[in-house]
Amino acid sequence: MPRTIDRAARLEEISQAVEAIARSDGFSAVTFRGIAERLGASTTVVTHLFGSRDELLDYVIDRSIARRCADIEAEIEDTVGGAAIRSIATAVVLNLDDDTHRFWLALVMGADLEPVVRKHLDRFNQWWDDLVFKHAKELAPNSDPEAVVDAINVIVTGLIVSGVETDALWSQQRRHAALDRLLAALDI
Amino acid sequence: MPRTIDRAARLEEISQAVEAIARSDGFSAVTFRGIAERLGASTTVVTHLFGSRDELLDYVIDRSIARRCADIEAEIEDTVGGAAIRSIATAVVLNLDDDTHRFWLALVMGADLEPVVRKHLDRFNQWWDDLVFKHAKELAPNSDPEAVVDAINVIVTGLIVSGVETDALWSQQRRHAALDRLLAALDI
Repeated sequence: MPRTIDRAARLEEISQAVEAIARSDGFSAVTFRGIAERLGASTTVVTHLFGSRDELLDYVIDRSIARRCADIEAEIEDTVGGAAIRSIATAVVLNLDDDTHRFWLALVMGADLEPVVRKHLDRFNQWWDDLVFKHAKELAPNSDPEAVVDAINVIVTGLIVSGVETDALWSQQRRHAALDRLLAALDI
Repeated sequence: MPRTIDRAARLEEISQAVEAIARSDGFSAVTFRGIAERLGASTTVVTHLFGSRDELLDYVIDRSIARRCADIEAEIEDTVGGAAIRSIATAVVLNLDDDTHRFWLALVMGADLEPVVRKHLDRFNQWWDDLVFKHAKELAPNSDPEAVVDAINVIVTGLIVSGVETDALWSQQRRHAALDRLLAALDI
């Protein structure tokens, strides 16, 4: 296999291992040794590509979040205002899978102890808030766009975590109904 | 010190150590050795009181949840219906501290891999749902109590996790405003 393809495949494997460890045991459990064990390889597989644990986390989290942002933006298409907010919320709550939700929750839990996690989470939240705010400004003139952003964040976060918490009970249909009901209550 | 007091003090110390480890690194990081290290003692301090890790987790989680349930029940006092739901939601979101919120989030993250965590989380959720449902039935006759329970769960969960995620940004005042706005939107 050519060297460049080999490198891309390795980065993909390593990223998936980091995400899997973070999802089940949190970021504090992500170590070079743990990744190597999961890949059935020696730690040099990782140290060959990353000079430090922070460098590794920086790469993996950045890559994962960039993909999610692209997914979300694709859902908005040409909609604006309430329709766009509805598309964004639906994309995040109903279209992203349980693994993605768990990885995001691991970021939330890990941000306090790991500055590199905090950096990416804050950057993502800023991007998200700006996106929702832009469309909240297009709603009825008497609505407060900042309050709409807060309410949307509470609803989306609550639906994601409720889904992770009791996956068996919260069917897609039930999540969809709760999302619809809450958005309707906010006139969105 | 009499033996019984010594035992109660040890149980308290051990419980606090378990909660602290779970909050920062998740339940998978809770080990007899880790607890002993945190207490600056040998593992026999733990093994003397608990025959297995599951027995230890069972005790600590049960104790922690029982205290929270008592706190929540105390807030309801004589209120019913919407006033009771408002009291319960406020108690959980605004009166419980960040450590309690983080411990609950560790339960959510740990439930998938640890049956003993799942057992207590499911039991707590059942208790909580029954409590909210009882008061949701007292709301306007045309409202659907089950849908109200779902909406309240989404809102409460979303507010707790938003607070954990960006503690510095979500002041008590901002959480309070978001909670009021969302409950008002639901006519509660």
